[in-house]
Formats: sequence, structure tokens, C-alpha cells
Amino acid sequence: MKGRVDYDRLREQFGTQVLGPELLAKLHQVAGADLHPLLTRGVYYSHRDLGPLLDGYANGKPFFVYSGRGPSGPLHTSHLVQFDLCAWLQRRLGVPMYIQITDDEKFWARSGLSREETRRWGLENLYDILALGFDPKRTHVFFDSRSIAALYPLAIRVARKIPYSTVKAVFGFEPSTNIGLVFFTALQSVPAFWPSWAEGRSIPCLIPCGIDQDPHFRLTRDIADGLGYPKPALIHTRMIPGLLGEAAMSTTANSSDNALFLNDPPKTVERKIHNAFTGGRATVEEQRRLGAVPEICSVWALWRTRFAESDSKFDEITRQCRSGELMCGDCKAQLLERVQAFYRQHEVARETAKTWAESAIVTEAPRPL
Amino acid sequence: MKGRVDYDRLREQFGTQVLGPELLAKLHQVAGADLHPLLTRGVYYSHRDLGPLLDGYANGKPFFVYSGRGPSGPLHTSHLVQFDLCAWLQRRLGVPMYIQITDDEKFWARSGLSREETRRWGLENLYDILALGFDPKRTHVFFDSRSIAALYPLAIRVARKIPYSTVKAVFGFEPSTNIGLVFFTALQSVPAFWPSWAEGRSIPCLIPCGIDQDPHFRLTRDIADGLGYPKPALIHTRMIPGLLGEAAMSTTANSSDNALFLNDPPKTVERKIHNAFTGGRATVEEQRRLGAVPEICSVWALWRTRFAESDSKFDEITRQCRSGELMCGDCKAQLLERVQAFYRQHEVARETAKTWAESAIVTEAPRPL
Repeated sequence: MKGRVDYDRLREQFGTQVLGPELLAKLHQVAGADLHPLLTRGVYYSHRDLGPLLDGYANGKPFFVYSGRGPSGPLHTSHLVQFDLCAWLQRRLGVPMYIQITDDEKFWARSGLSREETRRWGLENLYDILALGFDPKRTHVFFDSRSIAALYPLAIRVARKIPYSTVKAVFGFEPSTNIGLVFFTALQSVPAFWPSWAEGRSIPCLIPCGIDQDPHFRLTRDIADGLGYPKPALIHTRMIPGLLGEAAMSTTANSSDNALFLNDPPKTVERKIHNAFTGGRATVEEQRRLGAVPEICSVWALWRTRFAESDSKFDEITRQCRSGELMCGDCKAQLLERVQAFYRQHEVARETAKTWAESAIVTEAPRPL
Repeated sequence: MKGRVDYDRLREQFGTQVLGPELLAKLHQVAGADLHPLLTRGVYYSHRDLGPLLDGYANGKPFFVYSGRGPSGPLHTSHLVQFDLCAWLQRRLGVPMYIQITDDEKFWARSGLSREETRRWGLENLYDILALGFDPKRTHVFFDSRSIAALYPLAIRVARKIPYSTVKAVFGFEPSTNIGLVFFTALQSVPAFWPSWAEGRSIPCLIPCGIDQDPHFRLTRDIADGLGYPKPALIHTRMIPGLLGEAAMSTTANSSDNALFLNDPPKTVERKIHNAFTGGRATVEEQRRLGAVPEICSVWALWRTRFAESDSKFDEITRQCRSGELMCGDCKAQLLERVQAFYRQHEVARETAKTWAESAIVTEAPRPL
């Protein structure tokens, strides 16, 4: 992504709703205790139809959560913002979670990836996701190449509803686009309807996703009625800037230095944070005088999305940053400790996740369709 | 199909080879005894790479046969010409047979068909096909919606090789074509490579099909090399004229009066044959003087493709027709007896086929891919 992104404009352009205080209060009410930091810190900022979904929940109509991952390589910390919210919703509301691992799509989308690679990354990514705290009893995985018998009967019905012209417009397909990628959006829509099919009753779906994914799922919403299923509700995050900053050239942005990958060794994590782009000034003197700019800082984004242990800690760092009290080097040293603690905890949780990941993969269709 | 079709020109246009006496002699040699009537009577008239396939077989390299059916309704007798040859090849050469029932594709292709219908017709059609004399021990069925777990891992690889522009050109897809139909050709190509995958060695494939299907499987041939599988060989039939004649308007040609459906009751069969278009003359007198024209006669086409019990009988009918000895009414009466006998025999064979059809459906992938 080049330059700063105007997220409000993006939201207006897509025609989604603001995730405002009233709706957050409603969510707070059903969730109890407190709200997830990704909500209080404004990382989630937009939605579609979240209100009716929460009203339904409050009135005894359960919903489920769906998110997915295209396994093209290791996950990095920014990939976790969707799954973190999902896991929190599951803990607080007891909702089922459906995770789609699209090892077919990534093979179709990236000519440099082999099937062995997308399958392997699919499993590795799945372990990382499940390690975020999902409940084995309520978490179901569609691992596309292995779950196809469960997905395909519904995908057949979904695919008939989607003309080529629609996917061409939404995804910008070219004549050279392979027919797997053309078909894929049918499979991506299936999990949003699958529990309704499985249980033979209407079960609403909530999809946390990046705002850039909104057009994909708008397509899913558009076909829901015709299939007799409820439109999935959406809740959108801003895009998370990479370690090299939002202004990084796109080639740099794709470099492995632009993110903290979950399989990075400690030394690499340390180096990456050391080199991370900040909102600091040219000199210490200038920074003490003017303060730094958190909004453009990749380190601040890390505090914001995961590593500030409380909102008061996050507010304190933000204040100190802006006021010029906190220098970037000290801020990075503090962050590094938190990151290292997370990596250690995650490694343990990941080993536990491995013990039940296979049993979460859905392989059979629930009933004829 | 409107008007007469110049099959030699169609063959030249597609660039396929003539199925000539030399190649038929080679097939005769490996098959022993005699050749199938569909071969001796010129219904199969074109091919791609049949020679090397037969040479390989003669030298101990086995092949398999693949054909399919899109279950949009009941089968009629002309649908059997591919499967008749397949069953004969299996009996004579002991080759495995793979049958694909594309209940997904027909749902995508025909907006008027429900999934219940394509599934039901898929089973009904399958019973009819298996009743033609296939060996339960060597016959395998891909029933798309139920065999997807077996097909999909290979379909993922196939689909990446096929750009949208290719299927658009081959199948004439429009922007309004649904994405299921766009994807389908990947699934249609899979059976041609599946046994090679399953057994981990190169096993050539032979596909009997109508000449109009050649472009579909040329696409399969084009991607074979890149996937590391042998190009399937093809053997093509002419198109079989309907009961209302080749010149019937296309609306009439699609009417149920244009074919003998395998589920037609005896009275319907009788009526349809009675009303069938022939190559007869305007008056009996004229026909006795000039003879009739078998080449345009739908009744002659039925004798030719299935109902003449021997080549000598077929030649005799053809001679009598041309010479004016045989009037159309008498010819139809003779044919009706043969057709009725076939329907009676088929009903029994179909009941037997029902007992093993389910067990022939492949539902699992043979190995990772």
C-alpha cells in the first residue's frame, strides 16, 4: 500500500456503516465485562448489519463467526487481528467458529507456489490460528482440498448464482486468469451458509475481515437471499501498516522485513523491530520538542493491535509518544519485551493446538443438498 | 442440427485423423474375432492418436477408457454409441472403464433443472449405462457431486493450467455464464489423468466421443504434457440424426419425439418409430422405381448404430432400401421388433446394474497430490 489511506473515504466508497459508540455499547452489553482492545482502539471501525445480528443474539438467536486464511507462507502478527476478535467472540458469546484454509486458492493465485507448499502452509497457519485460544468443541475447519466433500454440494448451488461478469468486475480478472481462481469465490462464500445448511435452519454469520475484503463478501451477501440463507454481517478492520511504514514501496512492503512472522527466530524479531519505521523526528532534540507522530508509526500499530496489555497502557504510550517524552528506541525496547513474551506463550499454545487441529477439519457433507 | 452435416469437412476442420482400414485392421488384430458394428458401419470415423495407443497395448502397455454423461434427462438410444464401444473394448481388451456423471455441470448449464433432478437423472442414467454390459470389477464411476473428494486434488492442478480465455474460446462462454460452468472443464479433464495419478505411473486414456466433443478434449490433450500425464487418445462418432431427421428445426430436434428414450413405454416407442423421418419417396410407386435414400433416414441410422444384429443383415437392409425392394412401413415394422427386444433385455440388465452401481462410485482420493 502506497501512502496514507483515508479509511473513512474507503468506508464511504464501499457504503459500509461506521462502527460507532452506540453499536460498541450494544456489543459490550452482550459480551459483558469489557470490549476487545481491537474494538476500543479503533482497529475495527466499520461494519455491515452488525446491529441486527447482536439484537438477534440478545433475543436468543445464535450466530456463528467465519474467517479464513490463504496459506501462501507464514502468518505475521497483523494476520491475527481477525482471528483475535473471532476467538474473543467465541469466549464471550460461546459462538461456533468456522475457519477456511484456502490451499486451493493460493495455488491458483500464486504461480510460484506448489501444492505441497500451500498444503504445508495451510497446516502451519492453522496451528497458529487455533493457538489464539479457540475452543476445540466449537471450532470447525474447512481445509479446502481436504474438506471439499463437505463444501462442494453447497458450492454447486452458489456457483450457479454468480456470473463470470460479476467476478471479473469484483476481482479484476483478466482473460489469462485461470478457471480455478474464477470458481473460487463460490467456495469462499460457502462457509457463510454452511451451518444453516447443516442444521436445516437459518443461522446468521459474522465475518471479521479487512476493509479491503468487503467487495468479496458483498458478493456473498448479494447471493444469500436467492439461496434462502441470511446475508452475513461484516465487521471491518483498517489495514495494518507494515514495519516499513505505509509509505514503503510495494516491493519493500512485500519483503519479509515488513512484518513480524510467527516463525521468525528471536534474533530476527529483534532486528526487525530495531529497524521498524516510526513516527519519530530527525533528531532527539526535535522529537523532545515536537513529539512524534503515532498515526504513521509501525511500532505504535503493534502496540495498538496486540501488544499493549491494557487500554490505559496504550493511551499512556500514545500520550508519551505525542508529547515527546518517549523516544523511539525506548519504545521499541519496551515493545520487544512484549513481543518476545507473546512468541514464547504462542509456541506453547501452538503445540496444544496441534493435538486437536486434525479433528477440527470437516470432511463430510452434513446432509443431502 | 440443421441440414446435412459434412462430416469429412468437420473432421478436416478439427484436424483429426481418418479412422481408416489400416487402423481398423490393427484394432481387429488386438480385439480378436471381429470388430464392433459401430466400427464396421462407419459410425466411428475419426480419431486422434489411436494408433500409438493400440501399438502400446499390443506391446503390453495397458490403457483405460473414459466417457461421460451430463444427466439432464433420460438417455436415448443415440446416447449409447459411446458406451457401447466402451463396453465392447472392455470385454475384448479387459481395459478399465471410467464413467463420469456430471450432475454438477448439468445443473450449471440448464437453469431449468434442479439439483434434485440432475442427481436423480445421474443415477437413472448410470443404471442404463452400466446395463450395457460393463464388468463390475473394472468399472469406476465419478459421480461428480459425490466423487468430488476423489476428483478435486487433481482438478486443482488441472484448473491452474487453463486460462479463462481458453474456455471462453472453446465453449463460447458469455459474461453471463456462471462460474461453475467456467470451472467445469477442469473436472471434465480429470478422469483422463486420474488412473495415472492413482497408480503412480503413466496409463494412456482413450475417449470415445461425438466429433462435436473434440474441442473439449483437445483442451484436455493440450494440458496433459504440462501435468506430466499422457495425452488422451480420441475416437469420434458422426452425429446420429434424430428421429425427425437431420433437417428438423432445432426446436423440433429437442422435442422428445426426436429420440427413443430408454424410459419410453412400448406404445410411445411404437408411435415414435411409426412417425420417424425416413429417406422414402413421396409415393410407393416412386420408391419402387427410384429406391429410398438411407443416408438421410433416421430408421436406417437406428439399424446402423444398434439394431441390425449383423453386418450382413445391415448390408441387406441397406441394399433393399436403395433398390426400392423394401418399403419404409415394412422396414419400420422389422425395426420395431428389434427395438422392443432390446428394451425387454435392457430392463433386466438394468435391474442387475442397480445392484452394483453404488459400489462403483469412487469417493476417495487414491493418494496425496
